[in-house]
Amino acid sequence: MIMESERPKDECGVFGLYRHPEAAQLTYFGLYALQHRGQESAGISVARDKDKIYSHKGMGLVHDIFNTEDLKKIEGAGGSAIGHVRYSTTGDSNLTNAQPFVVQHRGRAYAVAHNGNLVNAHTLKQELEESGSIFQTTMDSEVFLHLFIKNLKQGDVVTAIQKAVAKIQGAYSFVLLTCKGEVIGVKDPNSFRPLALGKLNGHYVLASETCAFDLVQAEFVRELEPGEIVIINEDGVTSIMPREPVEKKSLCIFEYIYFARPDSTIYGKNVYQMRKAHGKRLAREAPVDADMVMPFPDSGNYSAIGYAEESGIPFEMAMIRNHYVGRSFIQPTQGMRDFAVRVKLNPVRELIRNKEIIIIEDSIIRGTTAKTRVQALRDLGAKKVHMRISCPPHKFPCYYGIDFSTKGELVAATKSEEELTQFLGLDSLHYLSIEGMLEAGGVENPENNFCKACFDGSYPVAFDPNLSKQCMG
Amino acid sequence: MIMESERPKDECGVFGLYRHPEAAQLTYFGLYALQHRGQESAGISVARDKDKIYSHKGMGLVHDIFNTEDLKKIEGAGGSAIGHVRYSTTGDSNLTNAQPFVVQHRGRAYAVAHNGNLVNAHTLKQELEESGSIFQTTMDSEVFLHLFIKNLKQGDVVTAIQKAVAKIQGAYSFVLLTCKGEVIGVKDPNSFRPLALGKLNGHYVLASETCAFDLVQAEFVRELEPGEIVIINEDGVTSIMPREPVEKKSLCIFEYIYFARPDSTIYGKNVYQMRKAHGKRLAREAPVDADMVMPFPDSGNYSAIGYAEESGIPFEMAMIRNHYVGRSFIQPTQGMRDFAVRVKLNPVRELIRNKEIIIIEDSIIRGTTAKTRVQALRDLGAKKVHMRISCPPHKFPCYYGIDFSTKGELVAATKSEEELTQFLGLDSLHYLSIEGMLEAGGVENPENNFCKACFDGSYPVAFDPNLSKQCMG
Amino acid sequence: MIMESERPKDECGVFGLYRHPEAAQLTYFGLYALQHRGQESAGISVARDKDKIYSHKGMGLVHDIFNTEDLKKIEGAGGSAIGHVRYSTTGDSNLTNAQPFVVQHRGRAYAVAHNGNLVNAHTLKQELEESGSIFQTTMDSEVFLHLFIKNLKQGDVVTAIQKAVAKIQGAYSFVLLTCKGEVIGVKDPNSFRPLALGKLNGHYVLASETCAFDLVQAEFVRELEPGEIVIINEDGVTSIMPREPVEKKSLCIFEYIYFARPDSTIYGKNVYQMRKAHGKRLAREAPVDADMVMPFPDSGNYSAIGYAEESGIPFEMAMIRNHYVGRSFIQPTQGMRDFAVRVKLNPVRELIRNKEIIIIEDSIIRGTTAKTRVQALRDLGAKKVHMRISCPPHKFPCYYGIDFSTKGELVAATKSEEELTQFLGLDSLHYLSIEGMLEAGGVENPENNFCKACFDGSYPVAFDPNLSKQCMG
Amino acid sequence: MIMESERPKDECGVFGLYRHPEAAQLTYFGLYALQHRGQESAGISVARDKDKIYSHKGMGLVHDIFNTEDLKKIEGAGGSAIGHVRYSTTGDSNLTNAQPFVVQHRGRAYAVAHNGNLVNAHTLKQELEESGSIFQTTMDSEVFLHLFIKNLKQGDVVTAIQKAVAKIQGAYSFVLLTCKGEVIGVKDPNSFRPLALGKLNGHYVLASETCAFDLVQAEFVRELEPGEIVIINEDGVTSIMPREPVEKKSLCIFEYIYFARPDSTIYGKNVYQMRKAHGKRLAREAPVDADMVMPFPDSGNYSAIGYAEESGIPFEMAMIRNHYVGRSFIQPTQGMRDFAVRVKLNPVRELIRNKEIIIIEDSIIRGTTAKTRVQALRDLGAKKVHMRISCPPHKFPCYYGIDFSTKGELVAATKSEEELTQFLGLDSLHYLSIEGMLEAGGVENPENNFCKACFDGSYPVAFDPNLSKQCMG
Ligand SMILES: Nc1ncnc2c1ncn2[C@@H]1O[C@H](COP(=O)(O)OP(=O)(O)O)[C@@H](O)[C@H]1O
Ligand SMILES: Nc1ncnc2c1ncn2[C@@H]1O[C@H](COP(=O)(O)OP(=O)(O)O)[C@@H](O)[C@H]1O
Ligand SMILES: Nc1ncnc2c1ncn2[C@@H]1O[C@H](COP(=O)(O)OP(=O)(O)O)[C@@H](O)[C@H]1O
Ligand SMILES: Nc1ncnc2c1ncn2[C@@H]1O[C@H](COP(=O)(O)OP(=O)(O)O)[C@@H](O)[C@H]1O
Ligand code: SF4
Ligand code: SF4
Ligand code: SF4
Ligand code: SF4
Ligand SMILES: [Mg+2]
Ligand SMILES: [Mg+2]
Ligand SMILES: [Mg+2]
Ligand SMILES: [Mg+2]
Repeated sequence: MIMESERPKDECGVFGLYRHPEAAQLTYFGLYALQHRGQESAGISVARDKDKIYSHKGMGLVHDIFNTEDLKKIEGAGGSAIGHVRYSTTGDSNLTNAQPFVVQHRGRAYAVAHNGNLVNAHTLKQELEESGSIFQTTMDSEVFLHLFIKNLKQGDVVTAIQKAVAKIQGAYSFVLLTCKGEVIGVKDPNSFRPLALGKLNGHYVLASETCAFDLVQAEFVRELEPGEIVIINEDGVTSIMPREPVEKKSLCIFEYIYFARPDSTIYGKNVYQMRKAHGKRLAREAPVDADMVMPFPDSGNYSAIGYAEESGIPFEMAMIRNHYVGRSFIQPTQGMRDFAVRVKLNPVRELIRNKEIIIIEDSIIRGTTAKTRVQALRDLGAKKVHMRISCPPHKFPCYYGIDFSTKGELVAATKSEEELTQFLGLDSLHYLSIEGMLEAGGVENPENNFCKACFDGSYPVAFDPNLSKQCMG
Repeated sequence: MIMESERPKDECGVFGLYRHPEAAQLTYFGLYALQHRGQESAGISVARDKDKIYSHKGMGLVHDIFNTEDLKKIEGAGGSAIGHVRYSTTGDSNLTNAQPFVVQHRGRAYAVAHNGNLVNAHTLKQELEESGSIFQTTMDSEVFLHLFIKNLKQGDVVTAIQKAVAKIQGAYSFVLLTCKGEVIGVKDPNSFRPLALGKLNGHYVLASETCAFDLVQAEFVRELEPGEIVIINEDGVTSIMPREPVEKKSLCIFEYIYFARPDSTIYGKNVYQMRKAHGKRLAREAPVDADMVMPFPDSGNYSAIGYAEESGIPFEMAMIRNHYVGRSFIQPTQGMRDFAVRVKLNPVRELIRNKEIIIIEDSIIRGTTAKTRVQALRDLGAKKVHMRISCPPHKFPCYYGIDFSTKGELVAATKSEEELTQFLGLDSLHYLSIEGMLEAGGVENPENNFCKACFDGSYPVAFDPNLSKQCMG
Repeated sequence: MIMESERPKDECGVFGLYRHPEAAQLTYFGLYALQHRGQESAGISVARDKDKIYSHKGMGLVHDIFNTEDLKKIEGAGGSAIGHVRYSTTGDSNLTNAQPFVVQHRGRAYAVAHNGNLVNAHTLKQELEESGSIFQTTMDSEVFLHLFIKNLKQGDVVTAIQKAVAKIQGAYSFVLLTCKGEVIGVKDPNSFRPLALGKLNGHYVLASETCAFDLVQAEFVRELEPGEIVIINEDGVTSIMPREPVEKKSLCIFEYIYFARPDSTIYGKNVYQMRKAHGKRLAREAPVDADMVMPFPDSGNYSAIGYAEESGIPFEMAMIRNHYVGRSFIQPTQGMRDFAVRVKLNPVRELIRNKEIIIIEDSIIRGTTAKTRVQALRDLGAKKVHMRISCPPHKFPCYYGIDFSTKGELVAATKSEEELTQFLGLDSLHYLSIEGMLEAGGVENPENNFCKACFDGSYPVAFDPNLSKQCMG
Repeated sequence: MIMESERPKDECGVFGLYRHPEAAQLTYFGLYALQHRGQESAGISVARDKDKIYSHKGMGLVHDIFNTEDLKKIEGAGGSAIGHVRYSTTGDSNLTNAQPFVVQHRGRAYAVAHNGNLVNAHTLKQELEESGSIFQTTMDSEVFLHLFIKNLKQGDVVTAIQKAVAKIQGAYSFVLLTCKGEVIGVKDPNSFRPLALGKLNGHYVLASETCAFDLVQAEFVRELEPGEIVIINEDGVTSIMPREPVEKKSLCIFEYIYFARPDSTIYGKNVYQMRKAHGKRLAREAPVDADMVMPFPDSGNYSAIGYAEESGIPFEMAMIRNHYVGRSFIQPTQGMRDFAVRVKLNPVRELIRNKEIIIIEDSIIRGTTAKTRVQALRDLGAKKVHMRISCPPHKFPCYYGIDFSTKGELVAATKSEEELTQFLGLDSLHYLSIEGMLEAGGVENPENNFCKACFDGSYPVAFDPNLSKQCMG
């Protein structure tokens, strides 16, 4: 049994590295650092031997998929590499859907890795099929590939990308690899998902989050611009910007709140500091008296530190996150209720008894885990349990690459704050306001910078909800 | 490559459960909770079918060693079970040495699991060999088994234990299982290692730490007394106390400082609170002005919270502990220096730059990891780096079941505090005083309660250093 | 190390079963029986749930690739299944190339498994790419799939197959599966590779060899006709014959000589009996006096029995085939020369010493293994060693799905019989004549029935040797 | 599912090699060649580093238990090694019972591997336990070890062996290893089990069968004498013969009939030739007219060749032994009756129909497999089915190391030949006579050379049937 989180699932993390004697190995470590962005499958493709692409992919965690021999098989002098980690929705969870995708065209090979979700994939797929295209997977990323290949004439890769990009809508951060060793990064004009450029001893590198740079000891150069295409080849880095400058970005604010690693810098801001700022704002918006402030670790840690600092109430790590969490274990018997929840976080009994507690959590999606945890604190004799959430209530689904809940529904969409307080067994519950969330981060003109559709339903890119669901990666 | 810690190694964790329909499975979860006490091998023995003992043991982590089928094979109606996790010194790291040990004697089987180290094992072994005993392992625990069997007449198990115990010296918390299903706990008269009694729906249970009770949802009954033998059978729990009452305990204080889980209660006190008290005392003993207090997570977390609270300096988790730490990964190339250290904790660049920092760590053994981490902070532009250690300097080896360092030496035994400050690249370094450590915990008459030999060399039980080493577990 | 044979490699074995409650499981056993036709990868696809196709594929042997759980995942009430085992040429030996291939088209899925080799795949591929097709693999089977899909209008699967088939040339026995559960068998007009129809409790089944029917306890119905398409659906079996009747078949005669299992019936004749007939003819064509006739087991067994019976010279199994052959073992040291050869067949020393021996072998491709074995017999004191080969010398490559030798060359193409006798260290060497081979089997008008191109270079289907090689499966 | 044979199980195979740079690796290959003597567990122990013994053991087949790394860990310059493969009776089938056993005594280590069964183990064990010995296993081999150690004074290993040997009764071929690197072979005075001395580039080697010598390219020196002890050390080979010369050997004749490999020489005679001689004699004792003689391969092969040669009736291999037999596969469904039998041998339909057949089999133990196979031949239309068995009926259990049947009984002990003919569905059935078996081999004075107790109940070494069973290895 693998402990299954009911937490949101991001669709992917990507990594790319231009010509390095250890391109595959460094990509492996890049993916290791990005593991939290996708724990279901991973893959690495390496371009070498003039015009070949070698790949290794598998289901599971990066360290299970690759061993030294696997890497040796694909590694090669002067190779470029791209890599990918992914989640997927049930049913499509198989190796065929693991990325990078590799295709052959006129004796040349191309590999692509994608983070995001295309909202018009279904329509495009239909058009492509009319004209005889055959799809091997059910993933939207394959649609991009077909468009790209269709537009590929005499090897002008960049034009082909531009033409393909002109057709697709939604969220995408692509990393492409040609059999000639070029590495290309593509970001959608809304800039939904992070993608950064770095440099490792003179070799350019691309990654979803800067924590991947830290691990391979690359230095951060800059975040990609909305709609930008960067081509890394023997001429260095060439940047192609969209014809019409982008006026309104929609950086996914939820990356800050939950997804990205606290030690990452995305869209130019550090995640830890953003979370702490949210916590401080939350303390001002929803104060309450108590003996201590505690997070549900680790996602709640940094806003809890902010809340405690701002409120002056002592900070305690009163639930201990098990070091072995995430590892599979045998299925516990029926009698052991809530086992998967309990095994992850164990409350420190002596800190809880007779105490008034403020819990800080990053977000509530289905609420069942939170409910179980609150109950555990009650069972140990907590006098009062308040909860503060470092973002607004999640009331709308996301169509841009995040899958909030496979089976369940968004609890805040159907329950009022009052009902939720009762449902969770709390003495009080408060969310950060939308304005609070936007303003706290210190980003100027936040309305023009962030997507916040899952909170208020104002979707920055139109979509057909029925179709979007079907082709969601 | 498995990330190898240079941290101290405890010799074991033990668990026992009397007659439960899922005795093996619950023991599995008990060991899962005690995993930190031994990550090299694990085993479970089950007494059932009237007079049989079935075992499953293996090298590695609990979740790797046992699968559902393995457990099914040994599980049985009305069975009692004991389990064990262990580290070992190099060279003896093999399956033969994995516990529980099972022996056959006159058609009866006995299993034993041991936490601790016998200081006179070598002498006893020699005596036993003179009289024709054959040893299968190089472990001190086997010596106890031989003494026990030698004294076993007409199945009077308790007398045999008492007689065996009378001969052995050192630290030991034994859990025994007879083929009749009795579960017996034995603690040495000094009470070096923790061992607690609990109750799970009426079934008695024994465990090294209470966190194991929490996971299987047992309630804590009490810590065993020094020299106590508890026999769990159909008559309930019978306690046999040593003839002469123990006047001076020597609870291993290092269990509080580093080993035990913060969510455990050992020797009657919660570990988290003990660490926080140490941190507070440290703030009073060794104050310094700075922008923030940060731990080396996770061992430094709780004393850092105490230090921050006492000093009023903001607490930050400025190094992020990787969630995937502890998993094996491929060997990084030569170029990636200090990889194993870096992959575990990644500093949050934006929090460090230009800051004056106080680091709180639980202890320093060899110092090489700490040195690397301090350097990493300097590289990111930390203005000043102070370090405060929540125990006194480790200057003496331990002969009671803890192996501070296999290859290396105790850095504080050879370097003055000043030299160490320089070696680690710090602006200042201070340790908690011995008195501070003893007093902070709020235990009355601490000198008569704790072992602190590794700090001051005053060993509570005599030993022959040459021989002790040889038979160390 | 897996013992690598230098023997010819067939490209595949296929199996299909129409709607059976245990379709996946029976296909598993069908593949198990066909394992010798492909030991590199295997896969099973199941159509169920109205319009879904579920697959499981992997590298290695059938029993390693599938466990009970894997089968459970794809098995489903009323499902139809197809399966495939394959070899591949080096470099392309990866999971992507494992069959069945599954494609999506307008919400419908199709799976295909192929045995054979298309000689015009390269040209067709080029045409398809011109019109925008994207290929995921380097296999010729994918070309057929693209043609099939291109011709698929309103789901008229049969017409699409006919149109696709009209374009391809070479050897092919396809098994197709539609998501509606139809199972379709297709055989090329030359009938290069075997493909038979059977019946299992009323459920129709297709298999490359009848030994697969035996294992699943199906009864043999008939071999497919040249160019025949059989559609198995709720109407039973519909057969579509090629417009122009086929006048000249080219059954691969090498299937009889080496590939197929002796307990199989292919093209309507039993393999064992065919081999024995070859052996008898050989005894008449190339008699020699000796103490015994012995095969190189197992491929030489049956012609050796024929030779011995015809000549009256005693038959001995004087080399013992190791029961554990084919299992991997650790790499032996340099010193242990010819280990892989020796471990497989061990001569019985006492039978060899001072004896005059006739060895019967099915064929010689590179000759290195035979040379080593002859030497082994000499080392044990054989007085004379004669060799008789139950087919003519292999002088030409095969373009119809058999890969004689990846690295090496056909030794008989470059060496005269005399040179070869010396090279192999023999006292005499004789091959079966082409006429002998054709006549011995008792097939009327054999010239119009068999392909024998690898012996005489008269290729029944034209090809461009340069291109053919490149797209060889 | 592993195909479980109902065939007799030998208790072990042993191998030993004195000081060789690749002692562990060569022992691995020695065990690989002896795999048929024990498929349940295997182990290798290496003496090196002056006085250490390193071991690796596991459950399963040799090639599954050891990988290159495992061997590297135990391999060492100048090491000596011994190895063991074993079967076991159910219940005791676990790693603890895997050999070699290693013990520690006064700082020295000893390893032992045993083939055979001690008939007085139970009594000796009781005595040893009285005097305080502790047993870790339920195996008779451990009893020998205890006796050996008890008698070990000042390291005089040979005297200790002699004294231990004086106490034990039954069948035993031991291979011992001391931490000083000495390798010692011990054979019981009856010489029940084979054990041979060989030489590999000047390094002495011991093995249960000579096929192990063939694989590692050692030359056969001689079979050990009854009661002989050979000590291999830096002085070469020293042989110690029993004080009183042995007058009556009891070589297990069943080793020739079934167990040993046909390519082995045991007790000085080749197995293949012995079997062929049995087959010839059988043809004279029990002739019958028929179309062909066929074996149940492979055990029946060699006597079938003899029978055919003698009778002049054509020999056919009309049942094909599956090359993948012995590999595990998934559990077939209920419907697939007799699957394990059918998957192993598949009859060649075309050879069987309308034919009169003589089947040659080596022996019948429970008869269920034979019954199923005969039925399969009937189902294919065999006109008449006669069976001839190349040994007399098995009517008595063996107490000397062979376990005829775990669950079942000896069918010939309860059924008359007539009843058996009917039970098996035969037209006629005949066994080789006891005299025939003894005389055919060409051994002078066979009554004084062979054990044949399982055929006539005249046990060469007395035993207490109740106790013997309990301690059977
Ligand atoms: N399963 C666990 N879950 C949470 N904390 C644990 C667990 N096991 C041990 N610990 C705590 O973790 C600390 C050690 O973690 P850390 O400092 O990250 O590693 P290191 O052993 O390298 O110092 C110990 O002080 C112990 O209290
Ligand atoms: N490798 C990592 N190391 C440290 N923190 C991580 C890592 N990956 C993700 N995170 C952080 O961990 C948080 C999630 O952890 P946690 O709350 O324990 O689990 P859950 O996903 O069940 O809420 C995220 O907010 C993310 O910032
Ligand atoms: N590795 C081996 N290679 C070849 N023959 C072997 C090997 N091991 C054992 N044998 C022979 O195989 C025979 C048993 O094979 P078989 O009859 O197929 O199986 P079963 O044990 O079920 O009767 C034995 O008589 C033995 O001589
Ligand atoms: N599963 C099987 N069982 C029995 N015989 C088989 C099986 N598969 C293939 N064969 C036969 O085995 C022969 C090849 O075996 P062998 O000569 O031992 O190996 P090699 O391929 O190295 O020549 C083929 O001629 C084929 O007829
Ligand atoms: S809807 Fe929410 S989760 Fe989705 S991109 Fe927008 S902010 Fe992110
Ligand atoms: S010496 Fe130190 S580590 Fe050892 S028992 Fe005493 S306090 Fe604990
Ligand atoms: S060329 Fe030879 S191997 Fe190829 S199909 Fe023709 S007969 Fe068969
Ligand atoms: S009783 Fe039979 S099997 Fe046992 S040793 Fe004697 S001949 Fe061999
Ligand atoms: Mg969380
Ligand atoms: Mg630490
Ligand atoms: Mg062959
Ligand atoms: Mg047999």
